[in-house]
Amino acid sequence: MKETKILLSEKEIPTQWYNIQADLGFDLPPLLHPVTLEPTILPPPLFPRAMNDAEFSKERYIDIPEPVRDVYKLWRPTPMYRARRWEKALDTPAKIYYKYEGGSPPGSHKPNTAVAQAFYSKGEGIKRLATETGAGQWGSALAFACQLFDLELKVYMVKISYNQKPYRRILMETWGAEVVPSPSPDTPVGQQILAQDPDNPGSLGIAISEAVADAGPRDDTHYSIGSVINSVLLHQTVIGQEAKKQLEMAGDYPDILVGCIGGGSNFSGFFLPFLKDKLDGGKPDLRVICAEPMACPSVTKGPYAFDWGDTAKVAPIAMMYTLGHTFIPAPIHAGGLRYHGMAPIISALYDRGIIEAVALHQNPVFEAAVSFARAEGFIPAPEPAHAIKAVVDEALKCKETGEEKVIAFNLSGHGHFDMGAYDEFFAGTLQDYEYPGEKIKEALKELPKVGG
Amino acid sequence: MKETKILLSEKEIPTQWYNIQADLGFDLPPLLHPVTLEPTILPPPLFPRAMNDAEFSKERYIDIPEPVRDVYKLWRPTPMYRARRWEKALDTPAKIYYKYEGGSPPGSHKPNTAVAQAFYSKGEGIKRLATETGAGQWGSALAFACQLFDLELKVYMVKISYNQKPYRRILMETWGAEVVPSPSPDTPVGQQILAQDPDNPGSLGIAISEAVADAGPRDDTHYSIGSVINSVLLHQTVIGQEAKKQLEMAGDYPDILVGCIGGGSNFSGFFLPFLKDKLDGGKPDLRVICAEPMACPSVTKGPYAFDWGDTAKVAPIAMMYTLGHTFIPAPIHAGGLRYHGMAPIISALYDRGIIEAVALHQNPVFEAAVSFARAEGFIPAPEPAHAIKAVVDEALKCKETGEEKVIAFNLSGHGHFDMGAYDEFFAGTLQDYEYPGEKIKEALKELPKVGG
Repeated sequence: MKETKILLSEKEIPTQWYNIQADLGFDLPPLLHPVTLEPTILPPPLFPRAMNDAEFSKERYIDIPEPVRDVYKLWRPTPMYRARRWEKALDTPAKIYYKYEGGSPPGSHKPNTAVAQAFYSKGEGIKRLATETGAGQWGSALAFACQLFDLELKVYMVKISYNQKPYRRILMETWGAEVVPSPSPDTPVGQQILAQDPDNPGSLGIAISEAVADAGPRDDTHYSIGSVINSVLLHQTVIGQEAKKQLEMAGDYPDILVGCIGGGSNFSGFFLPFLKDKLDGGKPDLRVICAEPMACPSVTKGPYAFDWGDTAKVAPIAMMYTLGHTFIPAPIHAGGLRYHGMAPIISALYDRGIIEAVALHQNPVFEAAVSFARAEGFIPAPEPAHAIKAVVDEALKCKETGEEKVIAFNLSGHGHFDMGAYDEFFAGTLQDYEYPGEKIKEALKELPKVGG
Repeated sequence: MKETKILLSEKEIPTQWYNIQADLGFDLPPLLHPVTLEPTILPPPLFPRAMNDAEFSKERYIDIPEPVRDVYKLWRPTPMYRARRWEKALDTPAKIYYKYEGGSPPGSHKPNTAVAQAFYSKGEGIKRLATETGAGQWGSALAFACQLFDLELKVYMVKISYNQKPYRRILMETWGAEVVPSPSPDTPVGQQILAQDPDNPGSLGIAISEAVADAGPRDDTHYSIGSVINSVLLHQTVIGQEAKKQLEMAGDYPDILVGCIGGGSNFSGFFLPFLKDKLDGGKPDLRVICAEPMACPSVTKGPYAFDWGDTAKVAPIAMMYTLGHTFIPAPIHAGGLRYHGMAPIISALYDRGIIEAVALHQNPVFEAAVSFARAEGFIPAPEPAHAIKAVVDEALKCKETGEEKVIAFNLSGHGHFDMGAYDEFFAGTLQDYEYPGEKIKEALKELPKVGG
């Protein structure tokens, strides 16, 4: 019998993160201060120095501190699977591989950066972190990390998710975090919103504003973020470095890499170490396909523009694909993909035509996820289900052409907390929200006026 | 940094199951027919021949079919962890190891036997399986297995769990199974119960009766069971065989093995390959501690007696520790530990004083589970949380005596489907049900009159 998964030993956990900024061949646009619109760093009262250093570094490799690697050992290296049963079910000549990040304690890729951020803040004498979370993947990963490094954590959780999806809230509490529904009465931003609209269901943009407003004035508290910024993408590159070694062991190199993008961190962590080979000319034909939801299609439908990272305009301004910082997407189940902007690194690569993107509706996404689950066993979270649909489309193209392409994707988390979404899919009540063109048009009027 | 987990390669998945019946040194009492009370086999219209053969075999090792091992590769070998952070938190000189079975697609140890049973039934030309499930661990594992071997599956799910815990029901449906609440109108047994009591909340005993009644009259259908019987325990011995090799690699041999028991299969799978060394005299001091809930304390409080395996008395009679086949335990969160009887193998070993048992209340169990989760990250299911409490007790004894004992336990599944139980624990609303002595006394009046 052939191998099903390719495993690495603990010793093979990468010792360094890979920094794509060394190989981009161009400079990323600057971050801008949310009020002055002048170039800024990651503000030191909010972020650990090591995060800021990595954010703008051009070093190709940055050492992973040993205590961080030591925590990674709880679930890393993660397995790389050859999806033989699914290939057969799809009747495709393509070879499909998936990297599985769902085996971590919180069930997703998020702790790869959460652990690093908690370690750095602890090392700078910080006692407490504040963060936002949507459906709870990020908040639970940071709660796990803060518990291990003995830090307090306050999580501002989008109110509609807080009420509708209690399981990840309890997960955070089990790891010792304090979780409040956002907008909350605990910050000036939250108070203001509640005064105008006591029933405001919350949004990721509002929750970010609250977490930043919490951490800003406090010397003992850092703000922590789960995606978008360069240093977070950097921390996720353990995924792709492992994946590259594992595919090498299998004797394959990918023709196509696929992943889902919300803020962009899981897929960047997966594809950036491979993209190095495309940027240096070694693998010019490597295709990278980003899958995003049609309900929040920042890359495929938004402009590449400067915009604030949050609703209340307290976070820095970044050059990115954006739907406008006031845009609130429809309540799709892939809560992790409901962000108005996109990682500046992904944005810059897409703008230059180096990577591709597709926007997908919920029903075909869940149909693909079920076909995967029935063949491979693992139940995908709604976010990587988007990647799975994009893989199906490429695999079926191979069926038509007869090409034996190697397709690899990142299965960033399990769906055991998201079974309600599958229930709706089977019941036929899952909505395919139309492309929210008018709402986006409105929100884009609020972009900052930068430069000429 | 020291190793956190001990990993094996796919090649090291055991090629044979270990059969303790070869080494017991005594014969297990016979199974009896539910009506005639005469010795019986596993009735062939209900079970695959291979299951029946294994049930009464004295061969020490039984080959694992290659297609079964091939499916095992989706999540096996499972990791063995050294719980260094938890040891530190407990301030114990004991060395604590845990085998983690929560990484399988359904999140528990159950597919180890589900895959084997589905394979055997498929090989005998069967089209369809019927089974019971409580909280859904077993039903979801069998749904996963049936999907891979292209078998239909009907699951009779205890009604109270069907209504209160929809996530595992959806999991089963995602893998293509039909799930109905039991008692159901689909079987004569269910019809009879519903006629007397339309609001009957169901029980595992009733659901077993319905699944047996479904499969019995149909040539195309086998009945499948997730615990208790010898052949199911046999399939789980992949856990202990891997664990033994992993501890050997770590240079340790356990002084104490701990696990939770409901029907007895996860812990038997873990400890039986080690128990061989105690039975043959090589490790006379090896201690084996079974942890069961005080709300359903079959081994610690029940008699060792012949009893039916199900409520409606359609399943065979076994000699086992039992609380009476009509006993319905309080609704503790560890649904997998709510069975009135116990595996005949565990029962016989306990009766002879070869293994030990403790009965535990919910609150101290969850307190222990939280201490584990905060140190090691992984969230235990309520069932193995019982094992964790028993480990805490032994580790704290070591702290008193200063002994550096090696304690190993089986973490049979993750708790991501059970966060509601943790919520109740934190809210202080989790009940410690009193020992149900009177109810047990009543139920024990219904034991069959066997022999003298």
